[in-house]
Amino acid sequence: MKKVGIVGVTGYTGQELAKLLFNHPEIEVCKVFSKTYANSKLKDICPNFYFSDLNLEAFQPGKPPKVDLLFLALPHGQSHSFMKDLMSASLKIVDLAADFRLKDSRLFKKYYEIEHKSSEIFDKFSLGFPELFKSRIKATQGCANPGCYSTSVILGLYPLAEKKLLADNIIIDAKSGVSGAGKALKAGSLFCEANENVKAYSTFNHRHMAEMESVLGVPVCFSPHLIPMNRGILASMYIDNPHKLTEKDVQEIYQEKYQAEPFINLNTDPAAVSTKYVLGSNLCQITVKVVSGTSKIVIFSAIDNLLKGAAGQAVQNMNIMLDFPETLGLPEISL
Amino acid sequence: MKKVGIVGVTGYTGQELAKLLFNHPEIEVCKVFSKTYANSKLKDICPNFYFSDLNLEAFQPGKPPKVDLLFLALPHGQSHSFMKDLMSASLKIVDLAADFRLKDSRLFKKYYEIEHKSSEIFDKFSLGFPELFKSRIKATQGCANPGCYSTSVILGLYPLAEKKLLADNIIIDAKSGVSGAGKALKAGSLFCEANENVKAYSTFNHRHMAEMESVLGVPVCFSPHLIPMNRGILASMYIDNPHKLTEKDVQEIYQEKYQAEPFINLNTDPAAVSTKYVLGSNLCQITVKVVSGTSKIVIFSAIDNLLKGAAGQAVQNMNIMLDFPETLGLPEISL
Amino acid sequence: MKKVGIVGVTGYTGQELAKLLFNHPEIEVCKVFSKTYANSKLKDICPNFYFSDLNLEAFQPGKPPKVDLLFLALPHGQSHSFMKDLMSASLKIVDLAADFRLKDSRLFKKYYEIEHKSSEIFDKFSLGFPELFKSRIKATQGCANPGCYSTSVILGLYPLAEKKLLADNIIIDAKSGVSGAGKALKAGSLFCEANENVKAYSTFNHRHMAEMESVLGVPVCFSPHLIPMNRGILASMYIDNPHKLTEKDVQEIYQEKYQAEPFINLNTDPAAVSTKYVLGSNLCQITVKVVSGTSKIVIFSAIDNLLKGAAGQAVQNMNIMLDFPETLGLPEISL
Amino acid sequence: MKKVGIVGVTGYTGQELAKLLFNHPEIEVCKVFSKTYANSKLKDICPNFYFSDLNLEAFQPGKPPKVDLLFLALPHGQSHSFMKDLMSASLKIVDLAADFRLKDSRLFKKYYEIEHKSSEIFDKFSLGFPELFKSRIKATQGCANPGCYSTSVILGLYPLAEKKLLADNIIIDAKSGVSGAGKALKAGSLFCEANENVKAYSTFNHRHMAEMESVLGVPVCFSPHLIPMNRGILASMYIDNPHKLTEKDVQEIYQEKYQAEPFINLNTDPAAVSTKYVLGSNLCQITVKVVSGTSKIVIFSAIDNLLKGAAGQAVQNMNIMLDFPETLGLPEISL
Repeated sequence: MKKVGIVGVTGYTGQELAKLLFNHPEIEVCKVFSKTYANSKLKDICPNFYFSDLNLEAFQPGKPPKVDLLFLALPHGQSHSFMKDLMSASLKIVDLAADFRLKDSRLFKKYYEIEHKSSEIFDKFSLGFPELFKSRIKATQGCANPGCYSTSVILGLYPLAEKKLLADNIIIDAKSGVSGAGKALKAGSLFCEANENVKAYSTFNHRHMAEMESVLGVPVCFSPHLIPMNRGILASMYIDNPHKLTEKDVQEIYQEKYQAEPFINLNTDPAAVSTKYVLGSNLCQITVKVVSGTSKIVIFSAIDNLLKGAAGQAVQNMNIMLDFPETLGLPEISL
Repeated sequence: MKKVGIVGVTGYTGQELAKLLFNHPEIEVCKVFSKTYANSKLKDICPNFYFSDLNLEAFQPGKPPKVDLLFLALPHGQSHSFMKDLMSASLKIVDLAADFRLKDSRLFKKYYEIEHKSSEIFDKFSLGFPELFKSRIKATQGCANPGCYSTSVILGLYPLAEKKLLADNIIIDAKSGVSGAGKALKAGSLFCEANENVKAYSTFNHRHMAEMESVLGVPVCFSPHLIPMNRGILASMYIDNPHKLTEKDVQEIYQEKYQAEPFINLNTDPAAVSTKYVLGSNLCQITVKVVSGTSKIVIFSAIDNLLKGAAGQAVQNMNIMLDFPETLGLPEISL
Repeated sequence: MKKVGIVGVTGYTGQELAKLLFNHPEIEVCKVFSKTYANSKLKDICPNFYFSDLNLEAFQPGKPPKVDLLFLALPHGQSHSFMKDLMSASLKIVDLAADFRLKDSRLFKKYYEIEHKSSEIFDKFSLGFPELFKSRIKATQGCANPGCYSTSVILGLYPLAEKKLLADNIIIDAKSGVSGAGKALKAGSLFCEANENVKAYSTFNHRHMAEMESVLGVPVCFSPHLIPMNRGILASMYIDNPHKLTEKDVQEIYQEKYQAEPFINLNTDPAAVSTKYVLGSNLCQITVKVVSGTSKIVIFSAIDNLLKGAAGQAVQNMNIMLDFPETLGLPEISL
Repeated sequence: MKKVGIVGVTGYTGQELAKLLFNHPEIEVCKVFSKTYANSKLKDICPNFYFSDLNLEAFQPGKPPKVDLLFLALPHGQSHSFMKDLMSASLKIVDLAADFRLKDSRLFKKYYEIEHKSSEIFDKFSLGFPELFKSRIKATQGCANPGCYSTSVILGLYPLAEKKLLADNIIIDAKSGVSGAGKALKAGSLFCEANENVKAYSTFNHRHMAEMESVLGVPVCFSPHLIPMNRGILASMYIDNPHKLTEKDVQEIYQEKYQAEPFINLNTDPAAVSTKYVLGSNLCQITVKVVSGTSKIVIFSAIDNLLKGAAGQAVQNMNIMLDFPETLGLPEISL
C-alpha cells in the first residue's frame, strides 16, 4: 500500500479525489488538509466519508507530510510560491491547479496575472495527459494535471495536430456543467441563476486557451458556455479541412493514436457523444465527423469534468507515477 | 374584436398560442381543433385553460371555420395537402409548420422527403420575420411562421447578409431546451435521458438549415445541441471577418437595422446574452463580439423557442396582418 | 394612473413585483430603491427592464416618496424599526416581509429573535389574504403580505378551520423550489448542492408556522423540503377526520368558500395539482381527497411562490387597496 | 467466479445491475436477455457497456441458463407465470419485480389485478431486506427484491415496529426522482412535463403500500410525489408518539438495530438527510427526530432508488445467497 495526502480535500475536486482514493485497492489516504475546516473531522464536513476518522489539518508547505505522493487541489496561483520547498522532500506531487501547466512565465502572467515564483523548476513537471505523455509522467517528480476544458479539447484535437493536419482556423464551442465553477459562493453559480438557462462566458479569453494553444501549437477560438447540469463537458470542435481528409481518413488517425488507450472511447455516431455516456467514469468519448458538401471536420468530445477533467485523470497520473496498472481504482462504466 | 381559430391547440406550441390569444385584448378565440382530443372540452385536456368552455373539434379543411385568421400548429407535411382549398375561403392564415417556408419544391422534398402538393401558391405566403419582411407579411393572405432555430440564426446574421458582409464560412452551434422536440413520446425526450446530459444531434443536416441558407444566401454549418432545460435557444455563431470590421462597425450595422424593432434587444455584453433574459417573452437578444487578435466575429442570439421561436412570432405576424400594433398582447419582459 | 414605489427591487421578489407593475394598465412605477445598487440604472442591474430609465436610489424612511402606495420587499426585521415614521406620510403600504404579519410581539420575538419596535401600530395592518380578509385589506393603510408557505397552507386549510372542522393533529409536508431562499449567496442555494437533490430543512421550527397557527387557531406540524426547481410550492396536508366528512362534504365546503374567487382553482383530481399548472400565474390550485378506508383528509395546494406566494398576492392586495378590479394586471394562465 | 444472468438488462434497473455485476470481483456475467433487443449486441443498445461482447438473447423460461444465479428485471406480473418451471433448475433467483413480494394471492390480486399462478411456491422466496431477514435470504432458493419506496419506508420504520412501538396513524410523504417510473414512454415522464414541476400521484393507493403494511403490520397513509431529478427517494414519515419516547430513546432503538449494518447510515441531523448523500451508493440514510412540544416522531430516510431501492439491494442479496461478503462490489460512498 502506498500512502497519499490530499491538500484542499473539501472542494468538489478534492472530494472526488478522496472518493477515488478511499476506494483504490493499493492506496492508503493518510493525510487530508483544508484551510477552511482545519481541526474538524473530515466526516463532519463531508458526511459521505462517514467511515473515515481522518482529521482535517492546515497544510504547511514547509513540513511536507510523510507520504509517497501528495495531491494539491488548491485554487490557482498558490502552489507556485511554495513548490520549490515542497519538492525538496522525497515525495511525488500531482498538482491539480494551473501553476505548472504552462512552461512559460510570461504566458502564466498574461492569463493568471501573477508573477511565477518557481519557473526554474518547470522541467520537474510533466503535463498530465496519460494518453499523450505517459513516459514523461512516469519519469518526473511532479505532474501538472490539465484543466477540464483543456482535457476535452486537447484529447479531441491532438491526433490531427501530431500529424500536422490541424489547420489554424479552429472554433471550439464547449458546454460545461456548473461544478466546473467549484464550490465558491458566486451569484452565477446559484441554482436559480443557472437552472433553465444557458449562457456564454469568457468568450475567446478563457484561461484554458493558453493550455490548448501551448500543446496544440495553433491558435484556437474558444467559447465556453454554462449549462444547467451538475457535471460534464461537451466540446464541439469545428476545423477546416484543407487536406480534404475523408471521415475514414480521420477515423483511422484517431484509431491508430487511441486504440490501446483504456479511457478513450471512439464512436462513429455523433448522437452517441453525450455527457451522459461518460458521467461518473474516467472516460473521454470522441466522435469525428467529416461532412461531405462542407469544408469542415467536426469533432465532439465528452468527459466528466470532475473525473477525466480533474480527479480521475489525477489518479490515472498517480497510477503511472507509482507503477500501478493505469486503470486501477478508476471507473470505466458511466452511471 | 377579431375572431381566430387554432388547429392543433393541445401541443406545446398550440397551448402557448392559445395562452397569448386568450390574453390578447382584441382577439376572440372562437374555434380550437385537435385530432387526438376532438369532442373533449379544451379545459379537460389543458387544465390551465380552466376558464374556457370551448370544445375541441376535428379540423376539416374542406369546411373552413368562420374566423378572420386561422393558426395552423400541425406537424410538418400536412398543410400543403389541403392549403389550396383552405385559402379559397376568406380568411388569413398563419402556418406554424414548415410547409410554406421554402419556396422551392425540390428543397422541400430534399429536407422533408415529401412531394409538395401546393407549390403553385407559394407566392400567397410571406415568410414571417416581422423585423425583416413586414410589408410583405401585411400584404399576403398566408404567413409561413419560421422555425425556432431559423429565427435565432437569421435574426442574428441578417444585418450582415443584407450588406453583403457575410462570409461563407459560417459555424452555428445552437443549444436548445427540450420543448423544441414537442410533446411526442420519444425516448430522447424522457426526463432521465435529457436531464444531466448535453448532446449534439442532426449535425449539419437539420431541416432548419434549408431556411437559413434560403434567406441568408450563403451555406451554413449548423450544429444543434439538446440541453437540459424546458425552453430557450442560444445560437452561437462564428463567422470570418475578411473585411476587418471592428466591433463598433458591426454594432452600428445592427443598431441601424434593429433600433426601431420592439422585440430585438441589442446588448454589448456577451455575458448578458442568456436564455434566461428572454424566457417567457417575445424578445430576441443579440450580442456582437469582434475579437481582436482573431479573425472572427462572434454573434450570440437568444430567444424563447416557444415564443419568438413559435407562438409569439405567430401572434406578432397576426398583429401585422390584422392591423393591430405589433406588440399588442405580447410579453416584453422576461420571467 | 396611480403612482407606486418599490423598496428592494433587485431581489427575486422585487423584480417579480416590478415586472407585474410595469405591465399593470393603471400603475406608474415612479420610484425604485436598492441599498446594494443605489445610484445605478435599474436596467443596468436587471437587464430585463431594458425599457426603463429609472434610477435606483437608497431608501430613506424619513423621506417617504410621493407615491400612492409603497411596496417594501426588504429582508425580515427591518421595516418594524421605521414603520411608524413612514406611516405618518399619506401613502398606503404593502410590506412583503414578516414584520407585521404576527400581531403579537412575543411570537415575533420567538420566531425572529428581534424586539418589535412598532407593536402599537399592529392594528394599522391587515393580513394580506384577499380571499379571506378582503374588507379589512380595503380599509387599512398597511397590508402585511403573507409568507409563501403560509399562503399555500392557510388557503388550503381555512375553509375547514372557519367551520371548526379542523382537528388539531395536522401534518404539513411542503415542497418548495429554490427561489424561496432568495438571491442570498448561501452554500445550500448553489446549483450543484440543490440540483439532483431533495432534503428537509427547518423541520417543525420554520418561521411560517407562527403565521399558520395564528390564522388557523390550531397547532401544525410543518415540515418544508427543498426541491430542485426554480419556482413553485406544493403543500401536502394530512388531517384527521373525526367528523367522518365525505369527500363530497369537504368539496362543498371549499366550493362555497372559494367559488367566487378568481385566483383559487378547485380541482377534484389530485394528479392535476402540480406546481406546473400554476407556474407564472397568480393562481392557487387546491384539491381535496378523503380516502375511504383511512381516517384521513388530504389536501394539496399549489402556488407559484414568487407570485401568489409573494409579488402576485402583493399586487392583488394593491388592487383592493387602490379600488382596482382584483385581477387587474395579474396573470391567470400558467406558463 | 460465480456465473450470473440478467433478464431485462436494457431497462434502467437492468443496466444498473449489469454495471454493478461487471465490476464485481467474484462474478462473471454470462447471459443477458432482452425481449425488445434480442439478437443485438449489448454494447450496441447500451453503449456504456462498450467493453462487453455479450449478445442479447430472448429469455425462454423453459430453458434456464446455466448460471449460479439469475436476476429477473422484468415488468411486474410476468415471472409468476413461469417461476415454477424456472425453479426446478438448479439455480438461485433474485426477482426484482413484485410477483413474489406479497405472500398472499388475494393481496396480489387486489393491487396488481392479476391472478397469481404460483402461490404454492411463496415459501421458496425470502423478502430481500438484508438488514432484516438475512438468514432467510441465505436459506432460500428465491429472493423477492423489495420495491424502491418499500425499502425506504420499511427500513425507516422497522426498528419501531419490531418493538411494538409503531402507532397505527402513520403518514408517509415520499419524494422520488423520475427514474422510478422506468424507461417506458409515458407522457408524465417527458422532460418538459417533469422538469420544473412537483406533483402527487397514487395518493393512498400505490402498490408499494401492500408491501409496507405486510411487513410493518400496521396500516399506512402513503403519498408519493414525483420531483424533477433523475435518481433518489426521500421518505418523510410522521408517526404518533403515544409512549412519549424521547429522541434519545428512539435513536438508541435504531442504533441497536442497525449499528452493525454496513449500508445503513444513522444521522442525528435531519438537514443531513438528503438524497445527494446517498446518490450512486447502496446506502440508506436515516434520521430520527422527536419534536418536543408536538406529539410526533419524524423519521426521514433517503436512498438511491436504482441502487438500495433496486439493483444495489439485489446484488447485496446475491452476495448473501452466494456466500460472499455482503458489501462486495457495492458502492459505499455517494457520488
